[in-house]
Amino acid sequence: MSISKRPLILVTNDDGITSLGIRTLVELMVSLGEVVVVAPDSPQSGMGHAITMGEPLRLYKTDIFENVDEYECSGTPVDCVKLAKHHVLKGRKIDLVVSGINHGSNSSINVLYSGTMSAAIEGAVEGIPSIGFSLCDFREDAHFDHAREAILKITSEALANGIPKGTALNVNIPAYDKKPLKGIKVCRQADARWHETFEQRQDPHGRNYFWMSGEFVNIDEEKPSTDEWALENGFISIVPCQFDLTSYKAISSVGQWDL
Amino acid sequence: MSISKRPLILVTNDDGITSLGIRTLVELMVSLGEVVVVAPDSPQSGMGHAITMGEPLRLYKTDIFENVDEYECSGTPVDCVKLAKHHVLKGRKIDLVVSGINHGSNSSINVLYSGTMSAAIEGAVEGIPSIGFSLCDFREDAHFDHAREAILKITSEALANGIPKGTALNVNIPAYDKKPLKGIKVCRQADARWHETFEQRQDPHGRNYFWMSGEFVNIDEEKPSTDEWALENGFISIVPCQFDLTSYKAISSVGQWDL
Repeated sequence: MSISKRPLILVTNDDGITSLGIRTLVELMVSLGEVVVVAPDSPQSGMGHAITMGEPLRLYKTDIFENVDEYECSGTPVDCVKLAKHHVLKGRKIDLVVSGINHGSNSSINVLYSGTMSAAIEGAVEGIPSIGFSLCDFREDAHFDHAREAILKITSEALANGIPKGTALNVNIPAYDKKPLKGIKVCRQADARWHETFEQRQDPHGRNYFWMSGEFVNIDEEKPSTDEWALENGFISIVPCQFDLTSYKAISSVGQWDL
Repeated sequence: MSISKRPLILVTNDDGITSLGIRTLVELMVSLGEVVVVAPDSPQSGMGHAITMGEPLRLYKTDIFENVDEYECSGTPVDCVKLAKHHVLKGRKIDLVVSGINHGSNSSINVLYSGTMSAAIEGAVEGIPSIGFSLCDFREDAHFDHAREAILKITSEALANGIPKGTALNVNIPAYDKKPLKGIKVCRQADARWHETFEQRQDPHGRNYFWMSGEFVNIDEEKPSTDEWALENGFISIVPCQFDLTSYKAISSVGQWDL
């Protein structure tokens, strides 16, 4: 492949441009193509598909990576994709959007809250093959090396085959536990939810505030086809996620209402 | 129906607890059941499915509405639903979550960015029948009266029939234009996207910033089955939206990759 035909790869994330996860991803992507980074200037975890509407955005050139055109943005992960597509790379064809590597799982219901995956889904909305990568270890100093080979393999396959129209891939990778990964499984999103608890505290002025935390509850009954099952059993999970939220099955039942 | 059997209805929105849209929705819901409001203390438009992770939440009792237990929250629309379910109404069965009435359309791709719809989807994740209502008029003083009858009808049908498991309804209502509404259509989400423009300005300190705006582009080819078509033709649109993002069709094609 000649230099001029190297694919143009946009890298973003939600943990912020200085996180270890995006540094790992950028290193890997540089081996596959021309890399442009547009990523948040601060952590944006849990931002879901949020965009910045009421205030302006800042965008500054950075110099963190090698051989990369890179920018930090004051907005959300989805803002970063929009800025990259319609401003930074205006007029150029982006061949792939990769987001992550997230520090923490984005499997099952977490995909909804995930800035990492929302950036990938925004890429898919723009018609660009897009992948979000997440590691099931939220620590700042999480170990990413065991994920490298699979990330290169999945990304190469995506560049070679494309990704089905209207979908983005949600890739989750088990935390490092010294054992080799068992393989890669293409799965569906497990049916799960969070059971939140709100811990009430008082500030020094006597006013209440709440810390939200929660327990993850997997309520899925046919587990082996799910991403949660794959991860618990040492496999990397890939769920193709669509942005057409229509429940076609539900159209007919709601269509029978007396409206 | 005896007082004790009146349904428990949670009302939230993304424009904030003082907006005209939520006031209209609360008035309507009081005629159908026991109403509890937990809504953002400030505008949260475009927040999508964001949750507050890095900082604590505030929750204060308010006294804006009549005959209603009501709270304003410093968080996102999804935070409001979580706080209502797991703190304010802990241990009680919520019969319905309604979100809105949003000032502005949440049809087609806008569902992804919408705090209004994300609150409704969060209700569905919790297993509660949930509806997001939006008016295709973003003005603060938008006219909501023409929407009242249909909102009562749709809500009553949802209370009587339930809403298919795993889905929330995305209801959009044409802006008032003096003509009567043509009816209600159950639709699919149109295939559309935003083409953003970023207007660059300079602050008084000489640094650049960007205002994001955009043009809505409907790229759907089979229009009559879509929400956009319904709205353009004077109908209220209902799209049942699911939170299982798995593209089952794409599982088989990605499953053929050499992984």
